Amino acid sequence: MPDFAERFLALAAARSPLCLGLDPSVELLRAWGLPDTAEGVRRFCGTVLEAAGERIAVVKPQSGFFERLGPAGMAELAWAVGQVRAQGALSLVDAKRGDVAGTMAGYAAGFAGPDSGFGGDAVTVSAYLGFDALRPVLDRAAAAGAAVFVVVHSSNLDGRALQSARHPDGRTVSEALADQITAYNSARGAGVGPVGAVVGATLRPTDATILDRLPASLILAPGVGPQGASLADVGVRFRRALSRTLPSVSRAVLQYGPDPAALRDALDRYRDTAWAAVTAGG
Amino acid sequence: MPDFAERFLALAAARSPLCLGLDPSVELLRAWGLPDTAEGVRRFCGTVLEAAGERIAVVKPQSGFFERLGPAGMAELAWAVGQVRAQGALSLVDAKRGDVAGTMAGYAAGFAGPDSGFGGDAVTVSAYLGFDALRPVLDRAAAAGAAVFVVVHSSNLDGRALQSARHPDGRTVSEALADQITAYNSARGAGVGPVGAVVGATLRPTDATILDRLPASLILAPGVGPQGASLADVGVRFRRALSRTLPSVSRAVLQYGPDPAALRDALDRYRDTAWAAVTAGG
Repeated sequence: MPDFAERFLALAAARSPLCLGLDPSVELLRAWGLPDTAEGVRRFCGTVLEAAGERIAVVKPQSGFFERLGPAGMAELAWAVGQVRAQGALSLVDAKRGDVAGTMAGYAAGFAGPDSGFGGDAVTVSAYLGFDALRPVLDRAAAAGAAVFVVVHSSNLDGRALQSARHPDGRTVSEALADQITAYNSARGAGVGPVGAVVGATLRPTDATILDRLPASLILAPGVGPQGASLADVGVRFRRALSRTLPSVSRAVLQYGPDPAALRDALDRYRDTAWAAVTAGG
Repeated sequence: MPDFAERFLALAAARSPLCLGLDPSVELLRAWGLPDTAEGVRRFCGTVLEAAGERIAVVKPQSGFFERLGPAGMAELAWAVGQVRAQGALSLVDAKRGDVAGTMAGYAAGFAGPDSGFGGDAVTVSAYLGFDALRPVLDRAAAAGAAVFVVVHSSNLDGRALQSARHPDGRTVSEALADQITAYNSARGAGVGPVGAVVGATLRPTDATILDRLPASLILAPGVGPQGASLADVGVRFRRALSRTLPSVSRAVLQYGPDPAALRDALDRYRDTAWAAVTAGG
């Protein structure tokens, strides 16, 4: 069976590389006239996924918006992941998990691959405890044909400060992490590896060299939309990795619901623009 | 109503400052002869909490070991948190969540305080995206009388490398984070604040100055047991913050189950030793 990267590349060619965030936030539920309950989340997700149909390559449920409702919210997360699969798309659970050893193996069992607790095809993780601590989830994902996206470079000021701190060898935290990701992928052979990176779509031109350190990774680029970067920006800033980049949009599309036609139109606009941006830049 | 720190300090004086990890891992369920299912997790947690009775101040469910079973595991996490409360102890959900803005607000709604989705009294968080990104959970916890423990200083080599990277002003990542925690707590008044820190129990003497930067924080010190630090070690290494330290033990106690008497005996040994270490050192 093809692995996550192979499936993504095929879907991106057929559908567009756009990744659609699935964010059942308090604000969006309210704007859609839905109750702030598990039932409201179910209807929200059902409407979004119906609009996405078979035209979107990757759907990214934002775990925090499900977890806020406790166990009932988590059941909706698992339901949404199953729906995404039924539509032939890939699910990338944005959970930013991170721990060490046995606990990390627990998260791996929860999120890495179709046989995991939540059944997702990919998951995001966070590395404050170091890259090596993530190995249980990387290894499980690699074995299952799943993917892991490690947060490398965020856009927020305070995040940049931490990620720009320097190791004794002069590399920043982000750079060292990117190198570790690439070493892991390279050790598994040629081509795009199981470990991707999260790099904010608002990447500044002076920071774009981080992409040169990630030649074998898929790149998840969240933050596309009016408050963040345009898809044209992504086309320029991520030029070095464009064929492997998943530009991710959430609120900028979701705000057009709950009307299915308006939602589908917004999705189509972003989908087509993403495709054009990637094709033009790649 | 007293806040988390006040309740902890009172419970620590009455029961002992020991924090008991609740880790329904594959390995422990197997060793206990329990099925690796939600039902097995329920029986495991029930036995541990019955042994803990009203003698333990804080119980720390390790979220990864619940999440691995998907939504059914998360329901057990919520059940365990409720049981801990019923026993008059504090629950500290070790979830190490971390994200930005609205998503962090989602995690806050899920984990910060008795009215949250999972209902815990405290939660651990991770700061790869910077301290400021955590504000939604810190603010909600502060308002709810709950606590947040930010991972500051871990014991694993690769984690230490990242956390020892330096900002342009010379401070390490850990040090800058500790200063931000202290500034947040201080802005809220005197006494122990709502933002605690996670500092591995195997803290080296040369690293112990990190505690001087955390004068207004509770300190969660995981890693007590044969593979980590002894409680006597904690008594020495955490001397500067001993009255505010929660030494946390998991496998070293849990391995004595499922026999209730053996489990209770092990727990009592650690409980008494923790008390003695804190009293001797403080």
